[in-house]
Amino acid sequence: MPLSTMNVVLSRDSQVRAMENTVTNAERYFGQFCSLLASYTRKTARLRDKADQLVKQLIDFANTENPELRATIRDFAEDLAKVQDYRQAEVERLEAKVISPLKLYGAQIKQTRADIKKCKRVQNNEIKQLEKLEKLRQKSPSDRQMISQAETSAQRASVDTNRSTHHLAETVDAFQEQKLKDLRRIFSDFVTIEMVFHAKAVEVYSSAFQTLENYDLERDLQDFRAKMRGIYGHNEARLLTDTNPAPSVPWPLASQSVQSTTAHQGKEAGDEEESEADSVEEIPLEDLKGQQQRHRD
Amino acid sequence: MPLSTMNVVLSRDSQVRAMENTVTNAERYFGQFCSLLASYTRKTARLRDKADQLVKQLIDFANTENPELRATIRDFAEDLAKVQDYRQAEVERLEAKVISPLKLYGAQIKQTRADIKKCKRVQNNEIKQLEKLEKLRQKSPSDRQMISQAETSAQRASVDTNRSTHHLAETVDAFQEQKLKDLRRIFSDFVTIEMVFHAKAVEVYSSAFQTLENYDLERDLQDFRAKMRGIYGHNEARLLTDTNPAPSVPWPLASQSVQSTTAHQGKEAGDEEESEADSVEEIPLEDLKGQQQRHRD
Repeated sequence: MPLSTMNVVLSRDSQVRAMENTVTNAERYFGQFCSLLASYTRKTARLRDKADQLVKQLIDFANTENPELRATIRDFAEDLAKVQDYRQAEVERLEAKVISPLKLYGAQIKQTRADIKKCKRVQNNEIKQLEKLEKLRQKSPSDRQMISQAETSAQRASVDTNRSTHHLAETVDAFQEQKLKDLRRIFSDFVTIEMVFHAKAVEVYSSAFQTLENYDLERDLQDFRAKMRGIYGHNEARLLTDTNPAPSVPWPLASQSVQSTTAHQGKEAGDEEESEADSVEEIPLEDLKGQQQRHRD
Repeated sequence: MPLSTMNVVLSRDSQVRAMENTVTNAERYFGQFCSLLASYTRKTARLRDKADQLVKQLIDFANTENPELRATIRDFAEDLAKVQDYRQAEVERLEAKVISPLKLYGAQIKQTRADIKKCKRVQNNEIKQLEKLEKLRQKSPSDRQMISQAETSAQRASVDTNRSTHHLAETVDAFQEQKLKDLRRIFSDFVTIEMVFHAKAVEVYSSAFQTLENYDLERDLQDFRAKMRGIYGHNEARLLTDTNPAPSVPWPLASQSVQSTTAHQGKEAGDEEESEADSVEEIPLEDLKGQQQRHRD
């Protein structure tokens, strides 16, 4: 085979290999970007789910607490839920603007791969025709007709290869341009989506921080103490009015016990419990009467 | 049993039950907050891992690309890595300032639970003593010595219960105060940690956005085309200088094939490929000679 023909054939081969590399690289890395970003998005969705569960628990908890803390925790839970709404938007936008376009590469790359395969087939046919021609020239240099036919076939194959290679070059050029454009767009979209989410999160958390800062812990604690004192108070109020035992009370130690109790209380439990007198009837009288009856029977 | 004594006993009982509720609620919700926030933190760590993998793939990909895109993708990957460093700081701070303090509640609640249990034992003992005394009074109202002993025991039990109940009330009061303070501090810390992370992420992504905006796609595409043309050029340069076949070239169709090739190229591939002439010797001459020899043998 003449050197110039060899060069043409080999040059086309390395040209196609270079294009194949471009596509293979894109396939490999875009595939990995796609699966990693899909996984990143799924993990973001799981983070959202976990935070949503926390929101639910916070609201349940708020309902068991005094009004001050209840309002604070509810507001905080609402802010936390708002962040999750933004996270949900982040997930949806990542899916639509990052993962979907990356997935589209699968189809695009498949098409370009098919083009490369076709081009290689055409190239191999050319080589086969050239080898056939070379063989004929060496084995039957006098068979003009056969050689002429083989020359025509080789020429046709060469034209086909040229057309196919140049078509492929255009395809790969367009593919590369699209790849670079999409890459920039996809990652810009990724960054924008993340940036918007994080900016919204900063905004909402700033409000959540204020909510927690404004929480009046002292008032809440006073509520708690009042509630607890309500229960103690029922006890103490009784005790304080019982210092002169009623005629119906047969146990003389009741008042004594009460006195030692209040003395003890004054010493150990501090002012707020000692001075408490507003009785809250926490225990139904029926129950007391019932038990009293039982004990007296 | 006298009404006043009954009231004291029952009031103490509901007092202890209210305190038990406070502790049970704290145990339940703080336990859930702890496990949910630990899970939230683990999921954040997984998000960081996934993004770190993406960073690694981006750098690998950058190394396969032309200088312009390589620099852009590397800078972008660095910014993405920076966000993960902040996420790592977020994870560490959540563990130290949110999860650890919530875990400490386990120990604290266990201690308070033990105090409640002890108080209930003391309460039950008082009730037992009172019942014993009541029984004695009904069955042997004349046995002054026995009744007197039982009265002393009941009195002692009553004093114990009072002391124990008030000690418990103080414990639970302190527990509640600590709970509210810790709750505010832990959630404020949570919000601060999240806020700092999101703010840093906004900052870094803003820079990443600029990096992607500044990417000169055209220059990159020109690089790609030059690289591809380098390989085509090798082909075309040969073809253009081969229009007059050298005496050593026996195949007359070589030049013909070349002419149709260049014509086709000119029509389909556009200016940049047509005008290219700087040949890059991509294929070692030894290989060509070797193959040439093989074909000529």
